[in-house]
Amino acid sequence: MSHLVKRLSSTVSIKATPSKAHHHVPLPSSAFPSGYLLTGLHAGVKRKPGAPDLAVILSTSTRPTSAAACFTRNAFKAAPVVVSDQILAQNAGRARAVVVNSGCANAVTGRQGMDDAWAMVRATDALLPPHPSSSTPAAKKPEHETLVMSTGVIGQTLPIAKILAGIEKHAPVSLGKDFSAWECAARAFMTTDTFPKLRARTFTIGGVEYRMAGMDKGAGMIHPDMGPASTFTSADAFKELHATLLGCILTDAPVSPRSLQSALTYAVERSFNSISVDGDMSTNDTIVVLANGAAAPREVEEIDEESDRDGYEVFKRELTEFAVDLAKLVVRDGEGATKFVTVTVKGAPTYKDAHSIASRISTSALVKTALYGEDANWGRILAATGSVALSSPSSSAPAQIDPTKVSVSFVPSDDTTPLPVLVRGEPENVDEVRAKEILSQEDFGVVVELGMGSEEATYWTCDFSYEYVRINGDYRS
Amino acid sequence: MSHLVKRLSSTVSIKATPSKAHHHVPLPSSAFPSGYLLTGLHAGVKRKPGAPDLAVILSTSTRPTSAAACFTRNAFKAAPVVVSDQILAQNAGRARAVVVNSGCANAVTGRQGMDDAWAMVRATDALLPPHPSSSTPAAKKPEHETLVMSTGVIGQTLPIAKILAGIEKHAPVSLGKDFSAWECAARAFMTTDTFPKLRARTFTIGGVEYRMAGMDKGAGMIHPDMGPASTFTSADAFKELHATLLGCILTDAPVSPRSLQSALTYAVERSFNSISVDGDMSTNDTIVVLANGAAAPREVEEIDEESDRDGYEVFKRELTEFAVDLAKLVVRDGEGATKFVTVTVKGAPTYKDAHSIASRISTSALVKTALYGEDANWGRILAATGSVALSSPSSSAPAQIDPTKVSVSFVPSDDTTPLPVLVRGEPENVDEVRAKEILSQEDFGVVVELGMGSEEATYWTCDFSYEYVRINGDYRS
Repeated sequence: MSHLVKRLSSTVSIKATPSKAHHHVPLPSSAFPSGYLLTGLHAGVKRKPGAPDLAVILSTSTRPTSAAACFTRNAFKAAPVVVSDQILAQNAGRARAVVVNSGCANAVTGRQGMDDAWAMVRATDALLPPHPSSSTPAAKKPEHETLVMSTGVIGQTLPIAKILAGIEKHAPVSLGKDFSAWECAARAFMTTDTFPKLRARTFTIGGVEYRMAGMDKGAGMIHPDMGPASTFTSADAFKELHATLLGCILTDAPVSPRSLQSALTYAVERSFNSISVDGDMSTNDTIVVLANGAAAPREVEEIDEESDRDGYEVFKRELTEFAVDLAKLVVRDGEGATKFVTVTVKGAPTYKDAHSIASRISTSALVKTALYGEDANWGRILAATGSVALSSPSSSAPAQIDPTKVSVSFVPSDDTTPLPVLVRGEPENVDEVRAKEILSQEDFGVVVELGMGSEEATYWTCDFSYEYVRINGDYRS
Repeated sequence: MSHLVKRLSSTVSIKATPSKAHHHVPLPSSAFPSGYLLTGLHAGVKRKPGAPDLAVILSTSTRPTSAAACFTRNAFKAAPVVVSDQILAQNAGRARAVVVNSGCANAVTGRQGMDDAWAMVRATDALLPPHPSSSTPAAKKPEHETLVMSTGVIGQTLPIAKILAGIEKHAPVSLGKDFSAWECAARAFMTTDTFPKLRARTFTIGGVEYRMAGMDKGAGMIHPDMGPASTFTSADAFKELHATLLGCILTDAPVSPRSLQSALTYAVERSFNSISVDGDMSTNDTIVVLANGAAAPREVEEIDEESDRDGYEVFKRELTEFAVDLAKLVVRDGEGATKFVTVTVKGAPTYKDAHSIASRISTSALVKTALYGEDANWGRILAATGSVALSSPSSSAPAQIDPTKVSVSFVPSDDTTPLPVLVRGEPENVDEVRAKEILSQEDFGVVVELGMGSEEATYWTCDFSYEYVRINGDYRS
């Protein structure tokens, strides 16, 4: 019966993952927002000597610093998520510091985990400059002003003594504001990331020039579904966001806490909540934004969606574009990824439907292995599309996708002509040479047109490779 | 900046997939139900010379043969699914033949695909013996009595001339009823399967001994969500079932069409709708059951849930157990699978919640790569558990999982003591040697206790290996 058994070769050759180093670019010190001090150092969580695993970020602005966050919707929220959410709620959206460790997620760590997260907060609080007496009456000074984030292995407790020593002894002497300080902080976010993810941009509101810079991390357990902090529960809920994704965005624009949260909620939905590496939602996903107003003239008031709609809309757009840039870096560096694929679903009855279908295509193991194999297997794209139950347009039965209205095409990244593979339900006679040409590019797009309406959504995803299995088959050891 | 880049080795060694040949076992001819003729032959759909790719199954019983089916819920239903559903509806649950091809799914093939599926039906109809004049008046003779199934690549049309030649010329001379005929038919279902999946069982209702035998196939695109045929739309809807999964169960018990469908719907929910290989739902998933009554004495009436509740319950239980056996074979032979893992979620508020969580754990890429790596990374199991939004128990807000009530353990297959890794939210000090001992077994279980109620569900899944990526990275070529 030996003919029944398909025996396996004992080795497979791995297609070289494209080098990603060029996505890390140096920035001039003038690119960064003012009023922040940062450091990234090796506290000893990671085994590798010298590898940064602790970042401390302080706002030194004399104006009040607003803070907002989006957190994972996972029921098993890690201790740092619970603690940060609590602090933001207590302070009504004000915080001046962020402390981050990599190497250990402090998730599912019970009471010890909560104690450790609070200890990190207290130690970082102690590094903050005193509040300028004018801005905050002593009675209103918040007890804690630090948000905390952790990423790494789940279910292990932090080496808290090492982390506290790092915060108390080593951070104060290494804080800085030049490129090197920002880069070290970004490096301290990294786990299986292959490059630090750091970006900056400049924008103008009301004639004043502001800066925004930030870092994020994430390469696996990436399919976030983050909702807004408890501070403003009325803000729109997020729908889809998964990974251990950590991100921190810092700006020297002045923004009211309420408007900072609503702009972040909007931005995250269209950026971090629209990426997937492996479809797994983490216990730790957190995006934090601080706005310290350090670049604003004294007389300029905080940007707020009610008192300054135009200024708010500009800020929201800038934040969204910046969040998309940071989010794409995570997909670019997806564990084992050799492809960067933009999935666009058009012609949907609702944004939610377009987003759900783009998400399903982006997480299908069969689609992702075909992308890795550079195989124009569009049947798998259709199977994924058709497996999504659409939301009900009313209280009646859900709308059904009509196969005879669906078209699919592959879009090259070099501005040459897209390749239709299915047109209104009928398969095209596909030029396989041309298909291979497009799919052998590192970047390309997949467009699915449903022919059911005018809503669309975009998702960014990567392929599924041998290297992904290698990384995740033995992550802990 | 070269230190930023984690370069890849050019080869990885693959853990040998355990041989699966021993799951194919010969059966005596007496094990099979009477009143069926079968064949499996090479029509020429598959490139490999001699590989069976066409199965024809005929009921020769003189009693009316009942038929029921569950079909994929994918919006892109393949032509054979649409055609079979239509025939069952036209005939009110009667059909006497099944024709199956592998190698090409006849899915997303437009009008040509529909024509081809009907051509297969008509050719197979012509092989059926005439109706005994007593049982069916000429006026009531159905126009078509064949159900059709296809599996293989999506988006390519069938080599229909070869298939029709197979049905018309080669099938009639090779039909048989011994083990070899059943085995050849089972082989004709196979695509990436490494062994034919054929089982039989005997049961007694009302003092009469009946037989049930059947085959299925499926190794990838396995996460079915099949609903009952349109014949009986009032039957319970299926919730989760994905793959190209094809199955055909044949019994010589007499069962009314209505009860055959409701028993199948129940069985599929607890078997084929509770397995996952890769989380992808196919366009072709179909499970068909025929009940021809050939073993029933003339005076015995059809088993029906209204007129013979006890008999029906026995039949439903036997069908469910048999469906579970067949479903497990699919997971066992999952593409690249080296593990067979039983995921049980207990203490849920509803069966649906337990089933959703078991499904999420079973499809998590991170859980599945950890299973492959024999890594007791239970944090990933929790992350998957916590990412499921529970159904609303009432019209109020959804129930939330309480992390302090959740326990997780690994259960060895050799009856030694299970290993708790999380007990009511607190991580155990896990004996990693013991954990490795359990996870290095081919079969083991994962039990998640939610502590929220008394409902439970079981899912069967496999690991995610290099071999899965190899198979699916280049399936078409």
